[in-house]
Amino acid sequence: MRVLITGGAGMLGRKLTRGLLERGHLRGENIDAIHLVDLVEAPVDSEVCAAHVADLSRPGEAEALIALEPDVVFHLAAVVSAEAEADFDKGMAVNLDGTRALFDAIRRSPAAPRLVYASSIAVFGAPFPDPIPDDFHPTPLTSYGTQKLIGEALLADYSRRGFLDGVGIRLPTISVRPGAPNAAASSFFSGIIREPLNGLEAELPVGRGVRHPHASPRAAVGFMVHAGEMDTAPLGGRRNLTMPGVSVTVGEQIEALGRVAGPEAVALISDSPDPAVADIVAGWPPRFDTARADAFGFVADDSYDDIIRAYIDDDLPHRM
Amino acid sequence: MRVLITGGAGMLGRKLTRGLLERGHLRGENIDAIHLVDLVEAPVDSEVCAAHVADLSRPGEAEALIALEPDVVFHLAAVVSAEAEADFDKGMAVNLDGTRALFDAIRRSPAAPRLVYASSIAVFGAPFPDPIPDDFHPTPLTSYGTQKLIGEALLADYSRRGFLDGVGIRLPTISVRPGAPNAAASSFFSGIIREPLNGLEAELPVGRGVRHPHASPRAAVGFMVHAGEMDTAPLGGRRNLTMPGVSVTVGEQIEALGRVAGPEAVALISDSPDPAVADIVAGWPPRFDTARADAFGFVADDSYDDIIRAYIDDDLPHRM
Repeated sequence: MRVLITGGAGMLGRKLTRGLLERGHLRGENIDAIHLVDLVEAPVDSEVCAAHVADLSRPGEAEALIALEPDVVFHLAAVVSAEAEADFDKGMAVNLDGTRALFDAIRRSPAAPRLVYASSIAVFGAPFPDPIPDDFHPTPLTSYGTQKLIGEALLADYSRRGFLDGVGIRLPTISVRPGAPNAAASSFFSGIIREPLNGLEAELPVGRGVRHPHASPRAAVGFMVHAGEMDTAPLGGRRNLTMPGVSVTVGEQIEALGRVAGPEAVALISDSPDPAVADIVAGWPPRFDTARADAFGFVADDSYDDIIRAYIDDDLPHRM
Repeated sequence: MRVLITGGAGMLGRKLTRGLLERGHLRGENIDAIHLVDLVEAPVDSEVCAAHVADLSRPGEAEALIALEPDVVFHLAAVVSAEAEADFDKGMAVNLDGTRALFDAIRRSPAAPRLVYASSIAVFGAPFPDPIPDDFHPTPLTSYGTQKLIGEALLADYSRRGFLDGVGIRLPTISVRPGAPNAAASSFFSGIIREPLNGLEAELPVGRGVRHPHASPRAAVGFMVHAGEMDTAPLGGRRNLTMPGVSVTVGEQIEALGRVAGPEAVALISDSPDPAVADIVAGWPPRFDTARADAFGFVADDSYDDIIRAYIDDDLPHRM
């Protein structure tokens, strides 16, 4: 079993790699090789892993990777939302052209590997019903969401034609993200939990009534592995699935922090309304009915308390 | 007012050209030029028109057309469904790369013209609710439908960013199509009406209970002109609209033929079941609730009888 992970140096790519190394097997076979592809060299701490520095959108680079004959490809590489909005050409090159180059390299190869595509709930845009059903139309409000939606459409058609065996998983907002805050409008969803757990102050730019679905990095790795293993025949032509998440308000996130880490953690959060962030977040989906993903065996975190505990167990630099 | 029509040599392109010449104005301005772009030279019978032979997917060709500074672009050029299924690379080149090249040429120009994009109900794939609402998710079952869906996603994002001012119109099956039958699975929808009106026998490959939405070429031209003129501000981010059609069963089409042309026309139709065609058609949408397009002022034919009469008035070579 050979695995290829694009975006292998990223947070989810590294956690997926660790998860696969711990399991040791995928689809009933021992994992012999994990090829980690990224624009920078991915850290490698196992003989099973190999790092490849490559830009999928450049001619020939996707072909060279597919020549490694992976049995399962996890396509996580992407320019994130804020960057794809700020640099339109770069977002199109990486998120659309890079994805198409990867799919076409597979199409021109003799194999039709399982391909797990990390899509996003950013394919959806307000206004929404509550909850949002599985058959609701995607109308992205960002270039990132548009590019992810196009990737989904290509994935479904390339699967239908037998070029590859695709599963697209629309990830909820991943929290609690480890590491430093970033410029993304969604950064505060993790920041209001992560910073207090690290003894730091955190600012909340939106109202406490804002509702949003979340998944821990641990749950996201579970989704990816399950998408790599599942029987795709029952999916029919509908290869893209909205993943289950824990839908909570910001107020409920903060209550969970209080239960897990005490009132002194909560006291580090201060309200600092930012109308620009609030406007962006108002276009985001609050809650999904993920009946289809549930029926296919994808499992969310149990609660936001568990999401916080997963961060403490897996990522908190200095335990409390 | 300068107009550019891609696919200008095709059936809808020629009918749109005639409609614009008869009106003489668009968006409150006199039409000074209609540039007809196609892979073959479009027929030109007015000093207002000019034919341009071009392949949009080739470097520089879209830029040369946009240098003509059109105020309104009707993008109708496409490889049709059957051909896009048989020749994947050609469908991707024309329907996806050609569309993107056109949009990018506009993006790099100083102007942001109105762009009317001929999409298709082929963006939808079974299973369906009845009727299919405006917010139902597109899950195409053909490469053509996939490519049209990607065009819709690009149109919406390029509009959101202000690169162009797009309206995507999802056309129902166009009937009665003039001319010879073609290899498309949908050919019979027109054939069972057109051939008897021309004194020829017609074969019906599906059951008479099959339901499908139709629009006359005349109604389709009306949709295109309205999409060229309408105020797009109320569309918000949702730039793609399912057009209203006349949803009838094949049996109801034949009853309408009897009312308009008499029992001798109906007698020319014979049932000749073709399971391959029936299978394809079973994946197609039967009926839409087009509340959104209705509210924005798009108007369907009144009845299938009227659709037949439009063919007799506009296209029947020898009047009955």
